[in-house]
Amino acid sequence: MPEECLFCKILAGEIQSNIIYRDDLVVAFEDVNPQAPHHYLIVPRKHIRTTLDLSTADNELIGHIYQVAGKIAHDMEFAEEGFRVVNNCNEGAGQSVWHIHFHLLGGRDLTWPPG
Amino acid sequence: MPEECLFCKILAGEIQSNIIYRDDLVVAFEDVNPQAPHHYLIVPRKHIRTTLDLSTADNELIGHIYQVAGKIAHDMEFAEEGFRVVNNCNEGAGQSVWHIHFHLLGGRDLTWPPG
Repeated sequence: MPEECLFCKILAGEIQSNIIYRDDLVVAFEDVNPQAPHHYLIVPRKHIRTTLDLSTADNELIGHIYQVAGKIAHDMEFAEEGFRVVNNCNEGAGQSVWHIHFHLLGGRDLTWPPG
Repeated sequence: MPEECLFCKILAGEIQSNIIYRDDLVVAFEDVNPQAPHHYLIVPRKHIRTTLDLSTADNELIGHIYQVAGKIAHDMEFAEEGFRVVNNCNEGAGQSVWHIHFHLLGGRDLTWPPG
Protein backbone atom coordinates (compact mmCIF):
# COMPACT_ATOMS: atom_id res chain seq x y z
CA MET A 1 0.00 0.00 0.00
CA PRO A 2 1.46 3.38 -0.95
CA GLU A 3 1.68 5.18 2.37
CA GLU A 4 -0.08 8.33 1.27
CA CYS A 5 -2.90 6.84 -0.79
CA LEU A 6 -6.29 7.95 0.56
CA PHE A 7 -8.19 5.13 -1.10
CA CYS A 8 -5.76 2.46 0.11
CA LYS A 9 -6.38 3.80 3.63
CA ILE A 10 -10.15 3.66 3.13
CA LEU A 11 -9.87 0.11 1.78
CA ALA A 12 -7.76 -0.85 4.80
CA GLY A 13 -10.36 0.67 7.15
CA GLU A 14 -7.89 3.27 8.43
CA ILE A 15 -10.10 6.10 7.20
CA GLN A 16 -13.86 6.01 7.65
CA SER A 17 -16.18 5.95 4.65
CA ASN A 18 -19.72 4.90 3.90
CA ILE A 19 -19.07 1.61 2.17
CA ILE A 20 -22.05 0.30 0.23
CA TYR A 21 -20.48 -2.73 -1.48
CA ARG A 22 -17.39 -4.89 -1.15
CA ASP A 23 -16.03 -8.10 -2.60
CA ASP A 24 -12.62 -9.68 -3.13
CA LEU A 25 -11.69 -7.30 -5.95
CA VAL A 26 -13.38 -3.96 -5.31
CA VAL A 27 -14.95 -1.70 -2.72
CA ALA A 28 -17.64 0.92 -3.39
CA PHE A 29 -18.41 3.83 -1.11
CA GLU A 30 -20.27 7.14 -1.14
CA ASP A 31 -18.48 10.08 -2.77
CA VAL A 32 -17.85 12.68 -0.03
CA ASN A 33 -18.92 15.41 -2.46
CA PRO A 34 -21.92 13.82 -4.18
CA GLN A 35 -23.08 15.22 -7.53
CA ALA A 36 -26.28 13.19 -7.75
CA PRO A 37 -28.73 11.45 -5.38
CA HIS A 38 -26.67 8.31 -5.99
CA HIS A 39 -22.93 8.94 -6.36
CA TYR A 40 -20.51 6.17 -5.46
CA LEU A 41 -16.89 5.43 -6.15
CA ILE A 42 -16.02 1.91 -7.24
CA VAL A 43 -12.37 1.31 -6.39
CA PRO A 44 -10.26 -1.79 -7.04
CA ARG A 45 -8.40 -3.14 -4.03
CA LYS A 46 -5.30 -3.30 -6.20
CA HIS A 47 -3.45 0.00 -6.20
CA ILE A 48 -3.34 1.18 -9.82
CA ARG A 49 -2.37 4.80 -10.23
CA THR A 50 -4.26 5.84 -13.37
CA THR A 51 -6.07 4.44 -16.40
CA LEU A 52 -2.76 4.62 -18.25
CA ASP A 53 -1.21 2.23 -15.73
CA LEU A 54 -3.70 -0.55 -16.46
CA SER A 55 -2.20 -3.64 -18.04
CA THR A 56 -4.05 -6.26 -20.05
CA ALA A 57 -3.85 -8.42 -16.91
CA ASP A 58 -6.32 -5.94 -15.38
CA ASN A 59 -8.92 -6.35 -18.15
CA GLU A 60 -11.01 -8.81 -16.18
CA LEU A 61 -10.97 -6.46 -13.18
CA ILE A 62 -12.28 -3.53 -15.23
CA GLY A 63 -15.08 -5.66 -16.59
CA HIS A 64 -15.90 -6.71 -13.05
CA ILE A 65 -16.21 -3.05 -12.06
CA TYR A 66 -18.97 -2.64 -14.65
CA GLN A 67 -20.68 -5.76 -13.31
CA VAL A 68 -20.58 -4.14 -9.87
CA ALA A 69 -21.90 -0.83 -11.23
CA GLY A 70 -24.91 -2.62 -12.70
CA LYS A 71 -25.45 -4.61 -9.52
CA ILE A 72 -25.39 -1.53 -7.28
CA ALA A 73 -27.75 0.36 -9.61
CA HIS A 74 -30.09 -2.62 -9.70
CA ASP A 75 -30.01 -3.29 -5.97
CA MET A 76 -30.50 0.40 -5.12
CA GLU A 77 -33.24 0.67 -7.74
CA PHE A 78 -31.87 3.38 -10.00
CA ALA A 79 -30.82 1.13 -12.88
CA GLU A 80 -33.90 1.47 -15.03
CA GLU A 81 -34.05 5.26 -14.99
CA GLY A 82 -30.36 5.31 -15.84
CA PHE A 83 -26.84 5.73 -14.56
CA ARG A 84 -23.47 7.01 -15.74
CA VAL A 85 -20.02 5.57 -15.12
CA VAL A 86 -17.14 8.07 -15.30
CA ASN A 87 -13.41 7.48 -15.12
CA ASN A 88 -11.00 10.44 -15.00
CA CYS A 89 -7.36 10.04 -15.99
CA ASN A 90 -4.85 12.71 -14.99
CA GLU A 91 -5.31 16.27 -13.80
CA GLY A 92 -6.95 17.78 -16.89
CA ALA A 93 -9.81 15.35 -16.42
CA GLY A 94 -10.12 16.16 -12.73
CA GLN A 95 -8.36 13.15 -11.23
CA SER A 96 -7.25 14.12 -7.74
CA VAL A 97 -6.71 10.77 -5.99
CA TRP A 98 -3.97 8.69 -7.58
CA HIS A 99 -5.68 5.35 -7.23
CA ILE A 100 -7.92 4.48 -10.18
CA HIS A 101 -11.63 4.82 -9.45
CA PHE A 102 -14.94 4.82 -11.29
CA HIS A 103 -17.72 7.25 -10.45
CA LEU A 104 -21.20 5.77 -10.55
CA LEU A 105 -23.92 8.45 -10.73
CA GLY A 106 -27.68 8.08 -10.84
CA GLY A 107 -30.98 9.13 -9.32
CA ARG A 108 -31.42 12.21 -11.50
CA ASP A 109 -31.31 13.02 -15.22
CA LEU A 110 -27.68 13.37 -16.22
CA THR A 111 -26.91 16.19 -18.66
CA TRP A 112 -24.58 16.62 -21.63
CA PRO A 113 -21.72 17.39 -22.03
CA PRO A 114 -20.35 15.21 -19.24
CA GLY A 115 -18.22 18.00 -17.80
CA MET B 1 -26.93 -7.51 -36.45
CA PRO B 2 -30.12 -5.85 -35.22
CA GLU B 3 -31.52 -4.27 -38.35
CA GLU B 4 -32.06 -0.83 -36.91
CA CYS B 5 -28.85 -0.44 -34.92
CA LEU B 6 -26.94 2.65 -36.05
CA PHE B 7 -23.65 1.47 -34.61
CA CYS B 8 -23.93 -2.00 -36.13
CA LYS B 9 -24.38 -0.25 -39.48
CA ILE B 10 -21.33 1.93 -38.89
CA LEU B 11 -19.30 -1.12 -37.89
CA ALA B 12 -20.46 -2.91 -41.04
CA GLY B 13 -19.45 0.09 -43.16
CA GLU B 14 -23.03 0.72 -44.25
CA ILE B 15 -23.02 4.19 -42.71
CA GLN B 16 -20.03 6.47 -43.05
CA SER B 17 -18.07 7.60 -39.97
CA ASN B 18 -14.61 8.90 -39.23
CA ILE B 19 -13.02 5.77 -37.83
CA ILE B 20 -9.81 6.40 -35.92
CA TYR B 21 -9.11 2.92 -34.55
CA ARG B 22 -10.22 -0.65 -35.18
CA ASP B 23 -9.23 -4.12 -34.06
CA ASP B 24 -10.91 -7.51 -33.79
CA LEU B 25 -13.02 -6.49 -30.80
CA VAL B 26 -13.80 -2.78 -31.07
CA VAL B 27 -14.06 0.19 -33.40
CA ALA B 28 -13.55 3.84 -32.40
CA PHE B 29 -14.83 6.79 -34.39
CA GLU B 30 -15.43 10.51 -33.99
CA ASP B 31 -18.60 11.56 -32.15
CA VAL B 32 -20.78 13.43 -34.66
CA ASN B 33 -21.56 16.01 -31.96
CA PRO B 34 -18.16 16.48 -30.30
CA GLN B 35 -18.02 17.96 -26.81
CA ALA B 36 -14.24 18.36 -26.66
CA PRO B 37 -11.33 18.73 -29.12
CA HIS B 38 -10.98 14.96 -28.86
CA HIS B 39 -14.28 13.09 -28.55
CA TYR B 40 -14.49 9.52 -29.78
CA LEU B 41 -16.85 6.63 -29.27
CA ILE B 42 -15.32 3.25 -28.53
CA VAL B 43 -17.82 0.60 -29.55
CA PRO B 44 -17.53 -3.18 -29.25
CA ARG B 45 -18.24 -5.10 -32.44
CA LYS B 46 -20.50 -7.35 -30.38
CA HIS B 47 -24.01 -5.93 -30.15
CA ILE B 48 -24.72 -5.42 -26.44
CA ARG B 49 -27.71 -3.23 -25.73
CA THR B 50 -26.77 -1.54 -22.44
CA THR B 51 -24.39 -1.79 -19.50
CA LEU B 52 -27.04 -3.87 -17.75
CA ASP B 53 -26.84 -6.45 -20.53
CA LEU B 54 -23.14 -7.15 -19.97
CA SER B 55 -22.35 -10.62 -18.73
CA THR B 56 -19.21 -11.71 -16.91
CA ALA B 57 -18.13 -13.23 -20.24
CA ASP B 58 -17.77 -9.63 -21.46
CA ASN B 59 -15.41 -8.58 -18.66
CA GLU B 60 -12.28 -9.02 -20.77
CA LEU B 61 -13.88 -6.94 -23.55
CA ILE B 62 -14.61 -4.04 -21.20
CA GLY B 63 -11.04 -4.08 -19.94
CA HIS B 64 -9.86 -4.07 -23.53
CA ILE B 65 -11.92 -0.94 -24.18
CA TYR B 66 -9.93 0.86 -21.47
CA GLN B 67 -6.70 -0.38 -23.05
CA VAL B 68 -7.90 1.12 -26.33
CA ALA B 69 -8.87 4.40 -24.62
CA GLY B 70 -5.36 4.74 -23.23
CA LYS B 71 -3.78 3.81 -26.55
CA ILE B 72 -5.83 6.37 -28.51
CA ALA B 73 -5.08 9.10 -25.94
CA HIS B 74 -1.39 8.21 -26.05
CA ASP B 75 -1.15 7.99 -29.83
CA MET B 76 -3.08 11.25 -30.31
CA GLU B 77 -1.03 12.92 -27.59
CA PHE B 78 -3.71 13.97 -25.15
CA ALA B 79 -3.06 11.32 -22.52
CA GLU B 80 -0.76 13.29 -20.25
CA GLU B 81 -3.01 16.33 -19.93
CA GLY B 82 -5.91 14.01 -19.20
CA PHE B 83 -8.96 12.27 -20.56
CA ARG B 84 -12.37 11.07 -19.36
CA VAL B 85 -14.19 7.86 -20.23
CA VAL B 86 -18.00 8.02 -19.91
CA ASN B 87 -20.57 5.26 -20.27
CA ASN B 88 -24.29 6.05 -20.18
CA CYS B 89 -26.86 3.42 -19.36
CA ASN B 90 -30.52 4.04 -20.19
CA GLU B 91 -32.39 7.20 -21.03
CA GLY B 92 -31.96 9.11 -17.77
CA ALA B 93 -28.22 9.03 -18.36
CA GLY B 94 -28.59 10.19 -21.94
CA GLN B 95 -28.17 6.89 -23.77
CA SER B 96 -29.74 7.28 -27.20
CA VAL B 97 -28.14 4.50 -29.26
CA TRP B 98 -28.95 1.03 -27.97
CA HIS B 99 -25.56 -0.48 -28.56
CA ILE B 100 -23.17 -0.04 -25.63
CA HIS B 101 -20.48 2.59 -26.21
CA PHE B 102 -17.84 4.48 -24.28
CA HIS B 103 -17.20 8.18 -24.80
CA LEU B 104 -13.54 9.18 -24.72
CA LEU B 105 -13.07 12.91 -24.21
CA GLY B 106 -9.87 14.95 -24.01
CA GLY B 107 -8.00 17.96 -25.32
CA ARG B 108 -9.50 20.41 -22.84
CA ASP B 109 -9.96 20.65 -19.09
CA LEU B 110 -13.00 18.59 -18.17
CA THR B 111 -15.27 20.09 -15.52
CA TRP B 112 -17.27 18.71 -12.59
CA PRO B 113 -19.97 17.50 -12.20
CA PRO B 114 -19.78 15.20 -15.21
CA GLY B 115 -23.23 16.20 -16.47
